[in-house]
Amino acid sequence: MKNFTSFADAGDYKALLAKALEIKANPYGYQQIGKNKTVGLIFFNPSLRTRLSSLKAAYNLGAQAWVLNAGADSWTLETADGAVMNGGTQEHIKDAIAVMSEYCDVLGVRTFPTLKDKAEDYGEVLFNKIVRYATVPVISLESATLHPLQSFADLITVAETKQKERVKVVLTWAPHVRALPQCVPNSFADWFSEVDWVDFVITHPEGYELDPKFTKGARIEYDQRKAFEGADYIYAKNWSSYRDYGQILSTDPAWMVSEAHMALTDNGKFMHCLPVRRNVVVTDAVLDSPNSLIVREAGNRTFSMQTVLHELLK
Amino acid sequence: MKNFTSFADAGDYKALLAKALEIKANPYGYQQIGKNKTVGLIFFNPSLRTRLSSLKAAYNLGAQAWVLNAGADSWTLETADGAVMNGGTQEHIKDAIAVMSEYCDVLGVRTFPTLKDKAEDYGEVLFNKIVRYATVPVISLESATLHPLQSFADLITVAETKQKERVKVVLTWAPHVRALPQCVPNSFADWFSEVDWVDFVITHPEGYELDPKFTKGARIEYDQRKAFEGADYIYAKNWSSYRDYGQILSTDPAWMVSEAHMALTDNGKFMHCLPVRRNVVVTDAVLDSPNSLIVREAGNRTFSMQTVLHELLK
Amino acid sequence: MKNFTSFADAGDYKALLAKALEIKANPYGYQQIGKNKTVGLIFFNPSLRTRLSSLKAAYNLGAQAWVLNAGADSWTLETADGAVMNGGTQEHIKDAIAVMSEYCDVLGVRTFPTLKDKAEDYGEVLFNKIVRYATVPVISLESATLHPLQSFADLITVAETKQKERVKVVLTWAPHVRALPQCVPNSFADWFSEVDWVDFVITHPEGYELDPKFTKGARIEYDQRKAFEGADYIYAKNWSSYRDYGQILSTDPAWMVSEAHMALTDNGKFMHCLPVRRNVVVTDAVLDSPNSLIVREAGNRTFSMQTVLHELLK
Repeated sequence: MKNFTSFADAGDYKALLAKALEIKANPYGYQQIGKNKTVGLIFFNPSLRTRLSSLKAAYNLGAQAWVLNAGADSWTLETADGAVMNGGTQEHIKDAIAVMSEYCDVLGVRTFPTLKDKAEDYGEVLFNKIVRYATVPVISLESATLHPLQSFADLITVAETKQKERVKVVLTWAPHVRALPQCVPNSFADWFSEVDWVDFVITHPEGYELDPKFTKGARIEYDQRKAFEGADYIYAKNWSSYRDYGQILSTDPAWMVSEAHMALTDNGKFMHCLPVRRNVVVTDAVLDSPNSLIVREAGNRTFSMQTVLHELLK
Repeated sequence: MKNFTSFADAGDYKALLAKALEIKANPYGYQQIGKNKTVGLIFFNPSLRTRLSSLKAAYNLGAQAWVLNAGADSWTLETADGAVMNGGTQEHIKDAIAVMSEYCDVLGVRTFPTLKDKAEDYGEVLFNKIVRYATVPVISLESATLHPLQSFADLITVAETKQKERVKVVLTWAPHVRALPQCVPNSFADWFSEVDWVDFVITHPEGYELDPKFTKGARIEYDQRKAFEGADYIYAKNWSSYRDYGQILSTDPAWMVSEAHMALTDNGKFMHCLPVRRNVVVTDAVLDSPNSLIVREAGNRTFSMQTVLHELLK
Repeated sequence: MKNFTSFADAGDYKALLAKALEIKANPYGYQQIGKNKTVGLIFFNPSLRTRLSSLKAAYNLGAQAWVLNAGADSWTLETADGAVMNGGTQEHIKDAIAVMSEYCDVLGVRTFPTLKDKAEDYGEVLFNKIVRYATVPVISLESATLHPLQSFADLITVAETKQKERVKVVLTWAPHVRALPQCVPNSFADWFSEVDWVDFVITHPEGYELDPKFTKGARIEYDQRKAFEGADYIYAKNWSSYRDYGQILSTDPAWMVSEAHMALTDNGKFMHCLPVRRNVVVTDAVLDSPNSLIVREAGNRTFSMQTVLHELLK
């Protein structure tokens, strides 16, 4: 593994998953890997799970870590190549990333989409620059289009809780009050469409189709109720439209996941990456039910990160 | 010890005090306790002493630590149960706390009072929710009504400096320009009213009576000069009124602790939890005198925290 | 070494440089020095290199570290002696620094000049107070007039890349859109005017003369082209006027370092402390050329800090 930015970087996902389960069973057993290593974490926007799980993962591995809130803690960054920097930006990302690489052995970076410029976002222009300028391995802590550490944690969660050989996993769109990125659903599709023991279904209102390069021909079912039938896992998430880029096309409360929805499943487990707006995306009753895996998923963020750090630092 | 939120949680305070003095004498002697442990620290408002002493305490114990500035670093939290989260809040505290518990072995949390809603503050509504949702032990880094780590550090300070078997300790109100919480005086009374080698006196203008559940029948003396007579320790602090909740009833500069006040004591030591507004609460001359214990108190914050971490992690 | 605030504190600079090169060659070889030690870092303004290189230096040395963003993370500090603190400030720097000293074994502090009050800035009023109130050794992470860790890193960089016994090093002023401190050029002159294998030249437009106490009689050449002739190292930096204190006297783009300028040198290396405004201070072509040392300089910030920590903690 050279960098970790998508499912493709995971290489043999079965081997990586096995390693994650091994690390989770023995979290402090690999500290020779992290000894004298420093993990750098750069955030261009707020974070709770990613920030804290990455720190915990580094510590479990015997490594040190630092966090930089780009902007608040440091300088305003220029991202345009060739810019004459006589305006508000104080440092070019080229220099900032090269320099930060000097202070760590692996660099985790969170960027975010504009949700306005589809070409820029789906070209991963900013993230790819960071990968290019870095002189150490880069881990995506979420980019404009993907969130692979989340999807890997989700895979760990499903793998360790499933009761059957094959399971039906449903990614469902759910309503929200703000226009959100497509990173989590893109990434979930990028991973789960590849898992050979998963029957993967995506359900959403028309107009919410994700980029086919991530859904890879997965079954799309516009009837949410039909999609839920017999499901073992319901993965809820809002996203804004990819087609009408960044737009909110529906706020239909019928798509909010409720106990009535869950009753259609085969005693299905409920998943969400968090943060979640309660009683907008999903009801309290579902979130607080014994079938809710939301806290376990969040806990597995430590182990997806720790496994990736292990691979990049070993 | 299950959590540490008040004097009652301390259990046998004499044993805890003895442990603190032992740890202070040998601060790096307990690192097996902290090995592979992570201390999480969440601040809902600014902090200097608590933040840094908690980090130092964790490091002394061989543990790692992370700090989260709620709001600035992460998402805006919802605290109302059952809320339909279609407004400004992005994550429910129930989920945030459960998730943060996944990334640490003990959770320190600082909240603050509204100073407007007495029932909410004195019910410790927010803090109690945090304790309820946490799945690891919780340490109060100051709540709406108490600041037990401060009081424990104050107890260490008095214990290690006292020259007599029994000492007279006076908690005195002092003026200030802003309405401040009652946490520190409440907590000081909660602890010092219980110490069997302390004669505890509280002095303040009328209307500044603290909640009797914390003063526990301690002697209240409205004449500040009389209270100071023969005192071994003067503990100064401003607070807003508990009776006329959150109000400033007096700014009388005669209550500012000066050398003339200290002259009434039995060569008394001066204490304050800091931050202190110089020449408003107490004069420079008193703060900078050899009898001032303010820096020592702050230093002992490391050892009160380290002792509590030791108890919760052992 | 008692504190590290200027070239004078370095003592025998040749021995310190030799130690730095030894530490760089074996960065994890001195962890007994840092064991159970905590490095405190206080920033009164933003930082990237200093913050991260200081953390890396502490970690390399086996020490722990904490960072405090003064203001954002803690309280508003009062700096005036004898102030009646009934206004906006919440804690006196005297108390804050004494207290922070309790939570670390060495304290790194970054302050900044007003660029308005020359006497206050060049008297290092704030920084000197911090040194006075601290009870642990203090490291300047940049003060109102100097940035010694940067200059020490620059010295390491020149020492490890020079191809000749003696080298010509040119500090050149360059244009900028904002009024900047004189810290970096002052400090560079403070160090490089003393190195016995360096021919040191300073070039800038008239009116940009630095304080003679730092330039120590170094050759000043107002003709930039002439200064560059035969140079082995070009160190570019903008600064505002010391004479017309804090003013911008020139924005002449002819002073921007370009390939044409570098062609005058003896295959000279280009240096800048960063952050740099590209195509304002220096062109992309120079910054991105093989002769650019900017990333190496930044990397050496770890080793200048680590060496200073080693000296202060040993």
